[in-house]
Amino acid sequence: MNQAVDQTALKKPLPETLLTALHSLFGERFTTTLAMREHHGRDASSYDPMLPDAVVFAESTDEVAAVLKLCSEHRVPVIPFGSGTSLEGHILAAQGGISLDLSRMNRLLAIHAEDLTATVQAGVTRKQLNHECKDSGLFFPIDPGADATIGGMAATRASGTNAVRYGTMRENTLALTVVTANGRIIKTGTRARKSSAGYDLTRLFVGSEGTLGVITEVTVRLYPQPEAVSAAVCSFGSVADAVNAVIQTIQLGVPVARVELLDRNGVKAINAYAKLALPEQALLLFEFHGSEHGVQEQAETVQAVVAEHHATGFEWATRPEDRSRLWAARHNAYFALLQMRPGCRAISTDCCVPISRLAECILETQADCEANDMIYSIIGHVGDGNFHVQMLVDPDDAADIARAEAVNARMVGRALAMDGTCSGEHGVGLHKMDFLIQEHGVEAIESMRMLKHAFDPCNIMNPGKIIRW
Amino acid sequence: MNQAVDQTALKKPLPETLLTALHSLFGERFTTTLAMREHHGRDASSYDPMLPDAVVFAESTDEVAAVLKLCSEHRVPVIPFGSGTSLEGHILAAQGGISLDLSRMNRLLAIHAEDLTATVQAGVTRKQLNHECKDSGLFFPIDPGADATIGGMAATRASGTNAVRYGTMRENTLALTVVTANGRIIKTGTRARKSSAGYDLTRLFVGSEGTLGVITEVTVRLYPQPEAVSAAVCSFGSVADAVNAVIQTIQLGVPVARVELLDRNGVKAINAYAKLALPEQALLLFEFHGSEHGVQEQAETVQAVVAEHHATGFEWATRPEDRSRLWAARHNAYFALLQMRPGCRAISTDCCVPISRLAECILETQADCEANDMIYSIIGHVGDGNFHVQMLVDPDDAADIARAEAVNARMVGRALAMDGTCSGEHGVGLHKMDFLIQEHGVEAIESMRMLKHAFDPCNIMNPGKIIRW
Repeated sequence: MNQAVDQTALKKPLPETLLTALHSLFGERFTTTLAMREHHGRDASSYDPMLPDAVVFAESTDEVAAVLKLCSEHRVPVIPFGSGTSLEGHILAAQGGISLDLSRMNRLLAIHAEDLTATVQAGVTRKQLNHECKDSGLFFPIDPGADATIGGMAATRASGTNAVRYGTMRENTLALTVVTANGRIIKTGTRARKSSAGYDLTRLFVGSEGTLGVITEVTVRLYPQPEAVSAAVCSFGSVADAVNAVIQTIQLGVPVARVELLDRNGVKAINAYAKLALPEQALLLFEFHGSEHGVQEQAETVQAVVAEHHATGFEWATRPEDRSRLWAARHNAYFALLQMRPGCRAISTDCCVPISRLAECILETQADCEANDMIYSIIGHVGDGNFHVQMLVDPDDAADIARAEAVNARMVGRALAMDGTCSGEHGVGLHKMDFLIQEHGVEAIESMRMLKHAFDPCNIMNPGKIIRW
Repeated sequence: MNQAVDQTALKKPLPETLLTALHSLFGERFTTTLAMREHHGRDASSYDPMLPDAVVFAESTDEVAAVLKLCSEHRVPVIPFGSGTSLEGHILAAQGGISLDLSRMNRLLAIHAEDLTATVQAGVTRKQLNHECKDSGLFFPIDPGADATIGGMAATRASGTNAVRYGTMRENTLALTVVTANGRIIKTGTRARKSSAGYDLTRLFVGSEGTLGVITEVTVRLYPQPEAVSAAVCSFGSVADAVNAVIQTIQLGVPVARVELLDRNGVKAINAYAKLALPEQALLLFEFHGSEHGVQEQAETVQAVVAEHHATGFEWATRPEDRSRLWAARHNAYFALLQMRPGCRAISTDCCVPISRLAECILETQADCEANDMIYSIIGHVGDGNFHVQMLVDPDDAADIARAEAVNARMVGRALAMDGTCSGEHGVGLHKMDFLIQEHGVEAIESMRMLKHAFDPCNIMNPGKIIRW
């Protein structure tokens, strides 16, 4: 499928002295077996696998530091690995080297319920964190869909369905423990909710995709579980009506917790996959968090807004089982779509625009998909102006892939022309390095390159991602 | 008063060629008059003035770039200047050079009401921005007290009373235009609400205090003016009761828009200054934003919480004039305190701790003030765990100043031991460079130094602030 340009550019066999040192430090937690390298050489993107030369399972920050010191000395690439759910080729070993698997660093270090914070090792997943803080009456809201690790989510600046209310990893990460390329261990912040003490190292590493250092511990904000939760769905004759209803909802300041769009194709796929009988129209799904009265008030406001935009079939529910039923369509959207074209893979896109331009951006992109006979659906975290077009392609058909990538490129161009971004939440990885230049301009990219060179002078930290050396 | 250590270390006369070039470019907007240099050589801190050698009034990003290119070539320091309200010596010309005054860059470039964003030149003040967006039904919530410029607020990562609900400049800055030390102009972001496109240059410059580049334009988030606003006040026999009531309010997830603490000394000063008759006890002031019913619900919840903590005299109000009356005490707090000791100046402190430790931190600090016979009051943005002790000192009494600084140092040590920060919102400037090391540790400071060296290789950007070269 998608081929990396510089897969073999700098690739060379690992030095024997490094192999020996890693083996003696990590024993069976250091491996070069093909199966393990294959597992660590692919992510959820459409790229062909690119295998690391070896895999190390670290169990502590000190072990990560030891790996980085050795790899720094030997000029060998290090690619941090969490759960392998990234979507833009972040964890592929484009230049070989060591995949540094942090999934065994999965201890919850502290929940400070009284401060609404938790500190976890990087390999803790978001579901694990939520499971472990459930009894404290708190929850961690960031939900990118996959059960990603908190370290990986910080590294890609992830967000997802709840971001419209609770923000992204950018807003919810208070502090990190990071190991820099030379093996130094730094703490980037404290548990204070705000600080103006020096350069914002936390935000520097959030979203840096393993290219500036390895995140080994994360302190995040938690939130009180809302007193009441309600959900609502409704259908629209056009995507434009649906999106315009969302725009008005946001402009009114309704504090929706989630608002998701599914286009007609997505709903059709769901109906087929989950044996549902939803109207085959654009669908909006809402979730409201607040007091009993507050969620009712929000639902009433939204009901009035969507009615103005010709919504039909407005339903809302407060009981958990009814909410789950209403939202069932959303949870299965990705897998349902894959069923529409057996043997295919999905190329996912990810733009975010100022909300006033969202309808326009989605409609033009939809028209482009239609004009190119794509098999696709559109899913949007529309409250943030963020949406994804999933296009199904034949992994063995280069022309098919090229057509989809051309749709993606035009979609990015459209978003940038609207003062939006080429990546709302998936990151840059291998896939968006050119779009990144297009978005930021060469001068800003030069600043990013200065950062990379300052923090990683030997270019061993996940090389070949975000910016070219 | 407070003396800078390295005031004259690198100071030398400006080169004649630079003077000539600046004069020919800026005409009367370039000046070396003593009056103008004095105006630009002091801020709202307790430092003695440190005068720049000259002042330039820039009117565009290109003019800022021209100044930086020239100063870079001549290795002359440049200190960005907004409204001069910083509190830690940020704008003092510790090593001489050019004060680059941005106050004439005061144009509102765009309000995108439908996207809840505004883009302003750096010299626009927060009051000006709020005045100009009033008719659009929106407001900009960050309120540090002084009518600071938006550029200055971004540069110091400012916050203030509304941060508990709306966040700080960190959360509310979407994009910046920045001129780097070599005169390059970069745009750090777009108007998309979220992005995972590359390194977070926006957050790198927010809080960098002019030491990495000059912020010339800022895109910020705006918010719909709330449908309803209400205010409440109540008194407590002890600071501990007041703070514990706040802790519980936050832990319950009540979305208070503001919650401010004034200690008994502060209330006494206000009574004397504004001829009020408030009970001379610790005072909490709340503000609630939301729907009519929402603000009532919040006020009721808070009333129940404060009652558990022995509050007295709970009053709440929704009409603007009544709200203003309730909050009058807060608005005059700083000036009222100054009246308690004629001829004095205030040394202000600024710590932020995890909220569960706030009562302890305030009480120990209060005891320290009492033990040292300070004339002081405590003001807290307590919902964030942030508080200030204002100590009145005789500017000509070195021992008096030293006593106050010792109280401050112990307060910082206490906050750091509680996993808090040495600066909640005032920044580092000249004053907190040693505390910054204490907070972050030498390894993290080394990373900050790498950033500084990468972005400002000749050390001309506000040198001698945040970290030592």
